Order: sequence, then C-alpha cells, then structure tokens
Amino acid sequence: MREAYKDQLDGILDDLVIMTHQVKRAVSQSTIALLTGDAGVAEQVISDDADIDRARERIEDKCFELLSLQQPVAGDLRQIVAGLRMVAELERMGDLAVHVAKVARLRLPHTAVPESIEPSVRRMAAVAQDMVSKVAVVIAERDVDAAREVEAADEEIDKLRRATFQEILDPGWAHGVEPAIDIALLGRYYERIADHAVSLARRVVFLVTGEHPGAQH
Amino acid sequence: MREAYKDQLDGILDDLVIMTHQVKRAVSQSTIALLTGDAGVAEQVISDDADIDRARERIEDKCFELLSLQQPVAGDLRQIVAGLRMVAELERMGDLAVHVAKVARLRLPHTAVPESIEPSVRRMAAVAQDMVSKVAVVIAERDVDAAREVEAADEEIDKLRRATFQEILDPGWAHGVEPAIDIALLGRYYERIADHAVSLARRVVFLVTGEHPGAQH
Repeated sequence: MREAYKDQLDGILDDLVIMTHQVKRAVSQSTIALLTGDAGVAEQVISDDADIDRARERIEDKCFELLSLQQPVAGDLRQIVAGLRMVAELERMGDLAVHVAKVARLRLPHTAVPESIEPSVRRMAAVAQDMVSKVAVVIAERDVDAAREVEAADEEIDKLRRATFQEILDPGWAHGVEPAIDIALLGRYYERIADHAVSLARRVVFLVTGEHPGAQH
Repeated sequence: MREAYKDQLDGILDDLVIMTHQVKRAVSQSTIALLTGDAGVAEQVISDDADIDRARERIEDKCFELLSLQQPVAGDLRQIVAGLRMVAELERMGDLAVHVAKVARLRLPHTAVPESIEPSVRRMAAVAQDMVSKVAVVIAERDVDAAREVEAADEEIDKLRRATFQEILDPGWAHGVEPAIDIALLGRYYERIADHAVSLARRVVFLVTGEHPGAQH
C-alpha cells in the first residue's frame, strides 16, 4: 500500500514532465507560426491547447485523490501542493503560446515580425523554448544545477526584451505602430513563459533542498 | 477542537478578503499614479507590494498548517486548495498593479497616457478596480450573484481594450510608437487583473455550488 502511494506521488512528477514537453512543443510551434506565417501551424497550437488543459485536469485530479485518500504530511504534502502549482503554471505557459500563435494568425498572410527585428525575436523565443526544455530535465532528474541554468537564462530573456524595445523605439524604426505593438506584446508573452519556467525550476529546487524559491515579479 | 478548526478554515477566507482589499488599493493607486504622474504614489504602490507578498506567505502557511494537522477531506480540502490558488492569484494581481506603477514611473515627469486616450484607459482601470472590489464581496459573502457580475464586467474590459487598440492604430494617432506601446501593455495588465478577478470569483462559485469554473485564457 505504502509502495503504491509512493509510486502515485512520483507519477505526478512524471506526468508533469510529459506536460512540460507538451508546453515546449506549443512554444516552439507557436514561434514557427510566428516567424513563417504558417496558418496551419498556428491553428494547430491553438487547438492542441485543449490537450494541455486536459493534462492539467488529469494531474489535478490525481493530486486531489492523493490529498483525500492518503492524507499526506510534511514532504509528501509539500510535493503534492507543489504539483498543483506547477500544473497551473504549465497550463498558463500553454495559454501564452496560444497568444503567440494568435498574434501570428492575426497578421496572416503576412508575418507579424518585420525582417529587421526577426533575429532578436527568434533569439528570445529560442531562449524561452530552451528554458522550458531544461525545466523538463529539472523535474525529471530533480536536477538542481539545471534549475540554476534556467534562472541564468532568464537574465538573457530580459536583456533581449530590452534590446527589442530599443529597436522598436529607435527613430529609424520604419514599420509603424502596429508591428511595434505586436513585438512589445510578444516580448511580454515570451518573458512570462520564461518567468514561469524559472518559477517551476525554483519549486523543484525547493522540493529537493527545502530552500525557498524567491518571489516572482 | 472541531470548532477551532472550522474557525481556522473560515479565517482563511477572511484573510483573503483583507488581501483582496490590499490588491484593490494597489490597483486604484497605480491608476492614480498613471493618470496623474504622481511619483510618490507610484513608489508607494511598488514598495507596498511587499505587504501583499507577506500576506500571501501568511495565508499559505495557514493553509499548510491546516492540511498537515487537520488532514481535511472533501469540501474542506477543496476550500483549502482553493485558498492556496486564490492567494497566488491575488499576489499576481498585486504584481500587475506594480507593473502599471512602473509604466507611470518610467514616463515621469510626464504621464504615460496621452490626453486623447485618457478616458478609455481611465474607464478600463475603473472597471478592473470595480471587479476587484466585487471579488472582495464575493469572497466575504460567498455571493454567487456578485460573482456573475464580475464575469459580466470582464466583457466590458475586453471591449475597452479593443477600443484602445483602435485608437492607437488609427492613422490619426499622433503620439508615436512609445505611448502606443505603453497603452498596449497597460491594456494587457488591466486585462490580466480582470482575468484573475473572474477566476477568483469562479473559484468561490465552485466552493459554494460545486459548479466547475471554466478555463481562463
């Protein structure tokens, strides 16, 4: 009985790893839709979000079942509550990828990102996507070092976002207000995806080391 | 013993009401900072956010204590887990108010919002603030009707946000890229505050009626 319970507890983390991969795919596909203007890919990201929502429900149900039936305390309780929070953050990251896909869809048959700023946006998206990949490793391996790498990458996201702002506010910006707004909001979406990645990584560090994750802003 | 436990359970909702009032104040003060360009008010919102973070920690600790010591099941368990989620959303709303205050601070000694678009931004902020006020009532009174009002108000926020987009994308927009980006991001912040208000209201409806809150996007 005790064994089965431990398995269920670890099963939640396994489910979170699978869900993190789903989210990573949503982030990478939404970026492809954004940079190529591929309508099919954008639609796919938007419709696939239902799978992420269902994964959330499934994992939440498991957490509730464990809380109700096993009445865990101490570390186990901490793990389940962390699981509930992580699943909520992953769902939110999926929503943010949908927002990126919707910006792409709104500008079809064109792409939302002018050529001159495309490298910065591409780089920001790549860093965010890589952070999500690393989060999967952090959760799967309880890897505290990988968690620190996620945190370090967040600084690069901030730097890239500031750089894109400089580009759109430059007097030489020739693309007008609409693409500038798209870029500003896209920067915000990727930044939030990155923030959630950091938060997820910190939660795992907290589970492993008991060291409290800092507040996120 | 059982009585004390019930009191603690209700105490969490009472604490959430107080925290909701703190958040409401942050939203209204950040809007004042934004629309008047008052540096002192902006700084106050930013520094007062630490109180909201502390409220979060306190309420979380109480939830954990109840989960550990009382091992609640069924409705009580549902209420505590809802409390954990609500407290996270309230903290996030406080962060969003800080974002508004920081936009205000960035543009000092000017105001970030050009006069022509000020009424739309003011209205959007007022609706968001009113939604947060109503959430306090929803939680305090377990008021399902007030929760429906919060949900209805969210449609107005969406409408107002679309209207501000039309204004900044209008060929007659004479204020350039920077204020347009500020308005776009401010719209996003108020929209997210409103989304969280809806989510909080739905969680209370779920606690009261058992009817599941819909997913938020």
